[in-house]
Amino acid sequence: MSRDDDAHLVETELASSVVYSGRLLEVRSDRIRLPDGGEATREFVVHPGAVLVVPVLPDGRLVLERQFRYPVRRVMLEVPAGKIDAGESSLATAQRELVEEAGYTATTWKKIGTLHPEVGYSTEFIDFFEATGLTHVGARLDEGEFLDIVIMTEDELLAVFDCGGLTDGKSVAALFAWRRRRGK
Amino acid sequence: MSRDDDAHLVETELASSVVYSGRLLEVRSDRIRLPDGGEATREFVVHPGAVLVVPVLPDGRLVLERQFRYPVRRVMLEVPAGKIDAGESSLATAQRELVEEAGYTATTWKKIGTLHPEVGYSTEFIDFFEATGLTHVGARLDEGEFLDIVIMTEDELLAVFDCGGLTDGKSVAALFAWRRRRGK
Repeated sequence: MSRDDDAHLVETELASSVVYSGRLLEVRSDRIRLPDGGEATREFVVHPGAVLVVPVLPDGRLVLERQFRYPVRRVMLEVPAGKIDAGESSLATAQRELVEEAGYTATTWKKIGTLHPEVGYSTEFIDFFEATGLTHVGARLDEGEFLDIVIMTEDELLAVFDCGGLTDGKSVAALFAWRRRRGK
Repeated sequence: MSRDDDAHLVETELASSVVYSGRLLEVRSDRIRLPDGGEATREFVVHPGAVLVVPVLPDGRLVLERQFRYPVRRVMLEVPAGKIDAGESSLATAQRELVEEAGYTATTWKKIGTLHPEVGYSTEFIDFFEATGLTHVGARLDEGEFLDIVIMTEDELLAVFDCGGLTDGKSVAALFAWRRRRGK
């Protein structure tokens, strides 16, 4: 929500360099001009963008995943999600991830919105979709990928949230944004 | 929400090393054991944890911030938030950040929950609080920190969300989690 009168807030790039490039993460360190004319450094992860899907079965139940997430060292309950491949649209990514991870195709896709999960240190955005008209075709997990599929009603998922069992940021935001879109 | 029967999902550490250590970010690369006995590498940002605050004025309006976020190159509407200092409790961080960034003290603090904003590549957790009984005492921004304070009713903020003007993941999750706690 940038505005014309935001000049007193805007930072501009002076110089940019890749300071780390690993298997998964690229980190850049940019020298920037502050709004008051001073200079500072900003370090951040460069991310290609991601998608998430709220997959709704014909009976209204949701298709979710339980997956061990090494950085937080625990099994997380999440909506299906994944990174955008080079040249891929976010809708195509969502359709691919729903089959590969969860094992479903969908007849109807509706874009709900966009999230920025980590504005402090990542360029990542997440486009998110509702998928309906699901057909189970079986998952095709990548090698080294392990996850369980969990089918829950909306009320069951809300009860898990109320007990502190749903803490994945994108999944919390998606659940409530999806409810809001349906007037709840 | 880990369970006793999650052995088929759990990854364990074999070796861990710091591969990048900058001004803001530390990146680790760990060699891990997969559930099927294979090996893989996990790269992630090491984060000290953070807090966010939903600050509610006596008339029910919310205290929010507009701040340029360099990684996403735009001004974001957000709830007050910040990183936990070494040895600091998350409540103390929340109290400190509400004064420093937004310029308010609060008489009543209620913990609402915890979020994990980026389980794919960061150890970060965010403890989040509702703050009520606010008194304006004036902000004390860090050098090189620039932000605007915005006061909005809950309905105004929801209208901004509906128009796509609230995309910060933690703020979306916090708004709806806070509403849910109040039976909405």
